[in-house]
Amino acid sequence: MQSNPTACLIIIGNEILSGRTIDKNLSMIALKLNEAGVQLREVRVIPDVESTIILTLNSCREQYDYVFTTGGIGPTHDDITAEAVAKAFGVALLLHPDAEQRLLAHYKPEDVNDARMKMAMIPEGAALIDNPISAAPGFVIGNVHVLAGVPSIAKAMMDFIVPSLKGGLPVLSRVLDIHCPEGQIASGVEEIQHRYPAIEIGIYPKVTDGMLRSTIVMRSTDAEHLALCTQAMSAFIVSEGIFVQEITG
Amino acid sequence: MQSNPTACLIIIGNEILSGRTIDKNLSMIALKLNEAGVQLREVRVIPDVESTIILTLNSCREQYDYVFTTGGIGPTHDDITAEAVAKAFGVALLLHPDAEQRLLAHYKPEDVNDARMKMAMIPEGAALIDNPISAAPGFVIGNVHVLAGVPSIAKAMMDFIVPSLKGGLPVLSRVLDIHCPEGQIASGVEEIQHRYPAIEIGIYPKVTDGMLRSTIVMRSTDAEHLALCTQAMSAFIVSEGIFVQEITG
Repeated sequence: MQSNPTACLIIIGNEILSGRTIDKNLSMIALKLNEAGVQLREVRVIPDVESTIILTLNSCREQYDYVFTTGGIGPTHDDITAEAVAKAFGVALLLHPDAEQRLLAHYKPEDVNDARMKMAMIPEGAALIDNPISAAPGFVIGNVHVLAGVPSIAKAMMDFIVPSLKGGLPVLSRVLDIHCPEGQIASGVEEIQHRYPAIEIGIYPKVTDGMLRSTIVMRSTDAEHLALCTQAMSAFIVSEGIFVQEITG
Repeated sequence: MQSNPTACLIIIGNEILSGRTIDKNLSMIALKLNEAGVQLREVRVIPDVESTIILTLNSCREQYDYVFTTGGIGPTHDDITAEAVAKAFGVALLLHPDAEQRLLAHYKPEDVNDARMKMAMIPEGAALIDNPISAAPGFVIGNVHVLAGVPSIAKAMMDFIVPSLKGGLPVLSRVLDIHCPEGQIASGVEEIQHRYPAIEIGIYPKVTDGMLRSTIVMRSTDAEHLALCTQAMSAFIVSEGIFVQEITG
């Protein structure tokens, strides 16, 4: 897992920072990256401010193998992502003939206007990302993948991108549902973490039927090693006289 | 709004980056900060890695008036936030007598163990944040507020903190539901944005009953100015022959 390529997601949007809209893309993108063998190492949520987008993008694209952005590629005045990305890369924002054709094919002639055609303005040298839902494409430039913010479109764009990513091994997870509070088994779980240092072990509290319980999540790219760790963890929990069952998700 | 104090939220947790858990704290914290007259300018989601927590915290606490963190203050081996915060500030992590008393009062004597008492280890000089749900406190050190990740506890801790924040004017918002796609009215909305540059105007697509519609959100600390902008926006939409109504939230 440690050797898998890394990724950062930049969520661009005042509506997320204001608390009005709850982001639905982070989890979707993270799960698809797990399968593709790419580890999401950081997420940043930033406002629709050009200088902030440029600074954040230029910092993150140096630090991570892949960068994904969501939001700000629509037709309105607050959609400034494409222009900011062009400036971050120091390239021109140009009318992309293929993007233009896609928009002209999508809209009725009477619905074509300057605002909508703004969505065909793409940083020079970028490749388009298909949008099967509303035509206006995303794009890839360098290691940066620029996606729409609308969840259904972001998802379709990720499906288009994933086959092109050079990932490592898929990240697998095994999950145990434990019928006691996490504090009761903390030292034993820590001991197992020391025996399996390459497995990422997380333990989280949850409340079921008013009872404080916990979930143990074990993650690795090595199925065999993960199975051994899961076995050791289950055996420990059972030895404490606590009910444990494996669950999915 | 521009002159209100700024804040950054750091969400600490592998479970968010893996896509397994969907964060519920961002929106709650953002909305409470709006009311308190503090503008949330950035969110970062980072893994449970000590060096990352230290670097991120030290960068953000210089850039913003307030920093909030969620996650990683529980009893298990993957809860490393308190120790990382102590290192970021260059202070010791010490047993806090008041935190110790709260935990001893909360747990039955037979349930007290080293893992649970770890939650009384607090960076030197920090003040406690009450946790009315499960006793283990958060803490404030410098401009950094360290909260639990469990949403109900994070919310209770925010309620405890908010009265102590030195905010500006509350951020108000007015929201219009527009019965046409955003691309149809983009140029008119942009013209109104130019007339009211101090109002933050966002326009977002949505699908209602299979119809593509849009939402216009206007935000400001100035109620009168906001009312004028809303009036101008409504008048413009009506003049285009499009149905518009004000909605809450």
